[in-house]
Amino acid sequence: MVKILYIVGIGSGEKFLTKEAEEILNKVDLIVCYSGYKKYVEKYNKPIFTTGMKKEIERVKKALEEAKDKDVALVSTGDPTIYGLASLAYELNKDNIKIEVIPGVTACSIASSLLGAVINHDFVVLSLSDHLTPLNLIIKRFKLALEGDFIICLYNPIGKKRKKPFLEVVELLKDKNLVIGIVKNAGRENEEKKIINSKELVKNLDFYLDYIDMNTILLIGNSKTKIIDGKMVTPRGYLEKYSI
Amino acid sequence: MVKILYIVGIGSGEKFLTKEAEEILNKVDLIVCYSGYKKYVEKYNKPIFTTGMKKEIERVKKALEEAKDKDVALVSTGDPTIYGLASLAYELNKDNIKIEVIPGVTACSIASSLLGAVINHDFVVLSLSDHLTPLNLIIKRFKLALEGDFIICLYNPIGKKRKKPFLEVVELLKDKNLVIGIVKNAGRENEEKKIINSKELVKNLDFYLDYIDMNTILLIGNSKTKIIDGKMVTPRGYLEKYSI
Ligand SMILES: C[S@@+](CC[C@H](N)C(=O)[O-])C[C@H]1O[C@@H](n2cnc3c(N)ncnc32)[C@H](O)[C@@H]1O
Ligand SMILES: C[S@@+](CC[C@H](N)C(=O)[O-])C[C@H]1O[C@@H](n2cnc3c(N)ncnc32)[C@H](O)[C@@H]1O
Repeated sequence: MVKILYIVGIGSGEKFLTKEAEEILNKVDLIVCYSGYKKYVEKYNKPIFTTGMKKEIERVKKALEEAKDKDVALVSTGDPTIYGLASLAYELNKDNIKIEVIPGVTACSIASSLLGAVINHDFVVLSLSDHLTPLNLIIKRFKLALEGDFIICLYNPIGKKRKKPFLEVVELLKDKNLVIGIVKNAGRENEEKKIINSKELVKNLDFYLDYIDMNTILLIGNSKTKIIDGKMVTPRGYLEKYSI
Repeated sequence: MVKILYIVGIGSGEKFLTKEAEEILNKVDLIVCYSGYKKYVEKYNKPIFTTGMKKEIERVKKALEEAKDKDVALVSTGDPTIYGLASLAYELNKDNIKIEVIPGVTACSIASSLLGAVINHDFVVLSLSDHLTPLNLIIKRFKLALEGDFIICLYNPIGKKRKKPFLEVVELLKDKNLVIGIVKNAGRENEEKKIINSKELVKNLDFYLDYIDMNTILLIGNSKTKIIDGKMVTPRGYLEKYSI
């Protein structure tokens, strides 16, 4: 029978797994993932192959190789096509392995719900990692996003040794007054969230440089985003259009 | 006991429902949704209250009112904070009803996976509905998205009586050569998909004006998006960085 490489998004936290993802993780012969995610897939009782950070090419090659005679799940958190390894798998697929991508709930959706209803209007998803994208392109995109009054979701905001892109972004927020939501470990045990504004971020930058880590996402509101009863809410525009 | 208004994202199609969403739909006393979505929630065997299109305010008010003494699920497809009713519920909540938002897999993630791995780099989510957003702001945002070489996900591309925003967008694509994925009824029985490019869209515009409907999403690739074995793939940049 034809074997399949499934590229599976598992969301963040057990609650946000889809039925499809669960079914596939229960039926494959091998799970391949980043070493830091091993703990999320151990309960499926499958052989697990992991590689560390910056070993993505090895990980995907292994998954493709094994899928010649096994059903394999290459696991991403969130959605596997959002800063995940799905496109790399297509790029490296020289042996015509059958690939199926299983979407998942991405971090910005989870964070949006936890904070209130943040991404309830047009938004931008931007990664601040300059490992594979030139910093000037990241900053150009951030400026355009501000200019368009988009809500902005910042993935990979800060790395252990990478603070520069974030510092440049903060610089661009200096004369703004925007609501910002910060969510750490969304959907997981040690979940934390804060709602601040850009003034506070600029003022207490040292604190936030320390607080924000690799498991954190930032959601910057648009000019209409507001706080209602402690929740961060971006109006869709109904109440401006209809008087009630 | 305190009653809760859950605002629940159900994804598109049974497979992409999360475990959390399913659990909540099984336990609430009432489901409130758009009349067109009734068919997706009938199987939970709950009382269902619906209103039609453009009756969102009535729908949300009813959900809040009923949540005074019942657990209620106000259902959105996809993610309820992405062009859904979550923010309106917070805006209309005058009686301090407890609200919990349950994220879901949004249409662009599902479409991205079906087409290949489209949103695998920075992207913009934009609605072409000018019902609540001025057309000039929509077009401004679209231009900025093109300028930033973002992947662009177009929600609500065309309405029964609304083609103008789409026509303006097509005008802006005239001198571009970008891969475009079109997905209709993603995750549902009558799912359809096409991968074309912007030249083809411009050339056969009449066909696409007819083909694209309210249940369609368009994903416009960035300048690096390509077709690999019939799949639409946006590289993340690994192979540019590492020679393998
Ligand atoms: C390499 S990206 C992977 C994104 C993932 N594929 C998704 O769709 O959510 C990793 C970044 O996603 C964000 N992220 C992923 N899971 C998160 C969580 N549970 N809480 C907060 N942020 C998260 C963080 O910004 C993190 O640096
Ligand atoms: C009012 S918005 C709701 C979006 C939804 N909350 C989500 O997160 O996917 C409706 C638009 O979403 C897109 N959409 C929703 N479900 C879809 C599906 N199953 N297939 C294709 N497009 C879909 C279409 O562009 C449609 O016009």
